[in-house]
Amino acid sequence: MEKLILVKVGGKIVEETETLNQLLSDFSKIKGHKVLVHGGGRSATAIAAKLGIESKMVNGRRITDAETLKVVTMVYGGLVNKQIVAGLQAIGVNALGLTGADMNYMCSEKRPVQDVDYGFVGDVKEVNAGILADLIVREVVPVLAPLTHDKQGNMLNTNADTIAAEAAKALSKFFDVTLMYCFEKKGVLKNEHDDESVISEITPEIFEKYVSEGIISGGMIPKLENSFEAIHAGVKQVIITRADQIHTEHGTKIII
Amino acid sequence: MEKLILVKVGGKIVEETETLNQLLSDFSKIKGHKVLVHGGGRSATAIAAKLGIESKMVNGRRITDAETLKVVTMVYGGLVNKQIVAGLQAIGVNALGLTGADMNYMCSEKRPVQDVDYGFVGDVKEVNAGILADLIVREVVPVLAPLTHDKQGNMLNTNADTIAAEAAKALSKFFDVTLMYCFEKKGVLKNEHDDESVISEITPEIFEKYVSEGIISGGMIPKLENSFEAIHAGVKQVIITRADQIHTEHGTKIII
Repeated sequence: MEKLILVKVGGKIVEETETLNQLLSDFSKIKGHKVLVHGGGRSATAIAAKLGIESKMVNGRRITDAETLKVVTMVYGGLVNKQIVAGLQAIGVNALGLTGADMNYMCSEKRPVQDVDYGFVGDVKEVNAGILADLIVREVVPVLAPLTHDKQGNMLNTNADTIAAEAAKALSKFFDVTLMYCFEKKGVLKNEHDDESVISEITPEIFEKYVSEGIISGGMIPKLENSFEAIHAGVKQVIITRADQIHTEHGTKIII
Repeated sequence: MEKLILVKVGGKIVEETETLNQLLSDFSKIKGHKVLVHGGGRSATAIAAKLGIESKMVNGRRITDAETLKVVTMVYGGLVNKQIVAGLQAIGVNALGLTGADMNYMCSEKRPVQDVDYGFVGDVKEVNAGILADLIVREVVPVLAPLTHDKQGNMLNTNADTIAAEAAKALSKFFDVTLMYCFEKKGVLKNEHDDESVISEITPEIFEKYVSEGIISGGMIPKLENSFEAIHAGVKQVIITRADQIHTEHGTKIII
């Protein structure tokens, strides 16, 4: 199978011109098939505030009422997505911006209300990866916004990490997929005070050891658990890295 | 050649739930290949106002400064486009929302400043209709937002009538194209006070006669001139009709 690199970048990188341009330049240097998944939460919060809509977050997730859904649909699907697409086209990458509704590539269902009512938030139900694969082999580069739909006419807000993992898993039927998560450090650090102490490889054994020793903790634990889950579902490897390293494949490799 | 129907609807229809749902239902009844082009000016004006951005119009066109460009990119490319796409998916139409930047299907250049500085408004330079045709033959239904890009990283605001005409002309290389413009009347009226006095067919001869007699006047003159221009450029016919008639092909047929 051919290789495919799927890069997920958070809002911070794509929402400032300078870091965005650097990202697009680095992303364009990745050879072969590729996909970009982006966030945009900071812009959504800023525009919601200007529109007089308060942003409520629970467990790092946005409570998405009807008005907030309009904001994220505009900001993720319009503003942020099209800035990236136009930016990539300018440097010769044949980008195509997509939400889950477009060609019904990713369908979800509204999260059931349990302890928290997240509102119009979608849990992914179905990924039509064949549609993406079809485009990818014709040199199109999908740029995926963190939005899905419920097939009943509603857009749904869906976390970009989840979009990336679900797309990567589904695309593994067609490609050898490397899923690359960007965050602010060069990789998972052995010593949080030393930015150069990047752990080069994490296996399930190393993961358990480091968790028990307290070296890996906090939000990194679910991130790594999700990475292992993606690998069990067919993804070749997951790399946790900094956005300016995506074309080098440096960072922390998660493998089993 | 196979038939293709390209429908252009203005903002008014797509911005209210009831008329939008009726439109999507009527559009879904059109058999065979089809494309939808939409406006969204009212929503853009409303959201701009909420964001404290004044909407300035000259000759019916929006003056698009940098802040206004962000608004139209959000509203046309995100909010309005994705509502339509999700709505069509819900009724079994495999819609794909596109701006000109997506797969570089329509490229424009910033309008030169003459009497008026329209700002980030694009005049269409190049349409890559092969990309659209490719999708269309695979039963994908493009939903085109009134946005293009300049291939230098900037989105540009482009009138939806122009997008429709340019797409129709370029697609005429691949299909027998009927271009359908929706407005609030059932067609071009012979008597403006009688909504049933629809002129069934307008040829260049009838056009000249009616203009000289004052039956056709005002904004309808450039609309019809553009229709003839589209036909000269390869479009099979233009139909001016009301949105609730698009599946019937009733209205005023412009032919040469």
